[in-house]
Amino acid sequence: MNITIAGAGAMGSRFGLMLHQAGHKVILVDGWADHVKAIQKNGLQANFNGEEFVAKLPIYLQNEVEPTLSSDLIILFTKAMQLETMLTDIQPLIKEHTNVLCLLNGIGHEEIIEKYVPKEHIMIGNTMWTAGMEGPGRVKLFGNGTVALKNLVSDSKAKQAADHIVEILNSAGLNAQYSENILHAIYKKACVNGTMNGLCTILLSNMADFGDTTPAHTIVERIVSEFAAVAKYENVDLNVEETVDYIEKNCYNRDTIGLHHPSMYQDLNEHNRLTEIDYINGAVVRKGQKYGVQTPYCSFLTELVHCKEQILGAK
Amino acid sequence: MNITIAGAGAMGSRFGLMLHQAGHKVILVDGWADHVKAIQKNGLQANFNGEEFVAKLPIYLQNEVEPTLSSDLIILFTKAMQLETMLTDIQPLIKEHTNVLCLLNGIGHEEIIEKYVPKEHIMIGNTMWTAGMEGPGRVKLFGNGTVALKNLVSDSKAKQAADHIVEILNSAGLNAQYSENILHAIYKKACVNGTMNGLCTILLSNMADFGDTTPAHTIVERIVSEFAAVAKYENVDLNVEETVDYIEKNCYNRDTIGLHHPSMYQDLNEHNRLTEIDYINGAVVRKGQKYGVQTPYCSFLTELVHCKEQILGAK
Repeated sequence: MNITIAGAGAMGSRFGLMLHQAGHKVILVDGWADHVKAIQKNGLQANFNGEEFVAKLPIYLQNEVEPTLSSDLIILFTKAMQLETMLTDIQPLIKEHTNVLCLLNGIGHEEIIEKYVPKEHIMIGNTMWTAGMEGPGRVKLFGNGTVALKNLVSDSKAKQAADHIVEILNSAGLNAQYSENILHAIYKKACVNGTMNGLCTILLSNMADFGDTTPAHTIVERIVSEFAAVAKYENVDLNVEETVDYIEKNCYNRDTIGLHHPSMYQDLNEHNRLTEIDYINGAVVRKGQKYGVQTPYCSFLTELVHCKEQILGAK
Repeated sequence: MNITIAGAGAMGSRFGLMLHQAGHKVILVDGWADHVKAIQKNGLQANFNGEEFVAKLPIYLQNEVEPTLSSDLIILFTKAMQLETMLTDIQPLIKEHTNVLCLLNGIGHEEIIEKYVPKEHIMIGNTMWTAGMEGPGRVKLFGNGTVALKNLVSDSKAKQAADHIVEILNSAGLNAQYSENILHAIYKKACVNGTMNGLCTILLSNMADFGDTTPAHTIVERIVSEFAAVAKYENVDLNVEETVDYIEKNCYNRDTIGLHHPSMYQDLNEHNRLTEIDYINGAVVRKGQKYGVQTPYCSFLTELVHCKEQILGAK
């Protein structure tokens, strides 16, 4: 199978490498020139569960993809704000039969993907695999994970395609499964990011310290309620109380991840990078406008994060 | 006239000193022990428009006021969060005829004062005078200012009392006037504080840098709209567009005050002190609950400031 990894950062490299090792014909596409050059020169170097691997994988700078190439499956792994540019750049690879699997964090990406890919060929999913970038052309891949996915529209042919993608991923040991409730899982994960990411970024806090504050429970409940209110319009029944409870039990635990700063905190406060807030809380605001649902907490948090990006001159 | 200054910080000391110099019988009451001791020992020391003054004014620690004392007029100048304790402590001084003038920043203080003083004896106002604290017992008083005030309830006797207080203040050169629209002025000033204070505190920004961000206009408009919505229930017609315009023209000007950090920023981020947010945006939230008005932006901002106070361990 011809597989294109669109966005070959740490996670894209993991998927690319594992699918390549399983015998699929994988090409990588990325926008980071140094990374692309390093892989073109030395191959993709990976510390894979402690062992050193080098994979000679073809990689293209995203605005230099060859129009003669074609893909049976494109797996999207860009940062959310780079998704649209990526889709524009790889448009030549998207043929009539090409299926596109979106494994980005956040919600609402289908709104963008639909502009480039027929709905029946869009698959949405998420993954629990992890991966780290060590430098241009070098990744570190440890531990285990899973993938869950589903066709975006209910359609028997799309369902067949989704099942086939599950098989392909499993042939590479990626522990994939078809999940009827994937949108629920995506929304639940987005609730974690939609609270911890923006709030810790604005408050310059780790998750546990935020969780210890008196208003934390109310704020998290208000934000999750807004996610649930828009999710309802997509036939996702997100239980607010359960989701808040899940966030509080997992994120505030000082013995596990409680003392960590979420990725958005790191992006903005440590690396002065623009955040993905528009694809988490900002997506809820847009969906709220579409469905006629008030989302003031998500609006204000999105606005505050943008203020902070601009005050800090993030890029 | 027997006048008590309840809260003899910088501004209370100014009013106390000027009224004392005009021949009124002034006593000061304050909760800061070092300040009280210094004044008891050396008098109130003031740099008053460049000249050195020492005024031998009686001052009491607020929980040691003598029950035999009585006041014709009490001027409240505490920090908002110290108001209720002050009123409890000075209760012996509040006789049947005593009028109480509230010149605190923020809104909604009457809710607390009403528990200690009959409505007909409550006067509300604001002042444009400034004053600075240089240390225990020492203040610096420069420039000019004004006072505007009004009786809280419409009542001819209360109006007479307000007029009399205006006379008293003017006898001390305090440029007071009776103002039918004082509540409008108080709300307008509260809108400035209700936007600049909390937002700059959370975003670690000066006013001009915040004003330069893309979301600034929307955020300020949303917050001012919530102030206006509750003000309407108190017969105050606060024009949202005009008020937003006033804030933008005044606070973002880099040649005047734009590069300053608002007082709340200084309180929390520089001095690790608790803020007055509950008496600005928090007061709008309580009024909103009372009148059935949604105030999500004020709620969220109040909650965020409290989170930050707690994360920083402010006292």
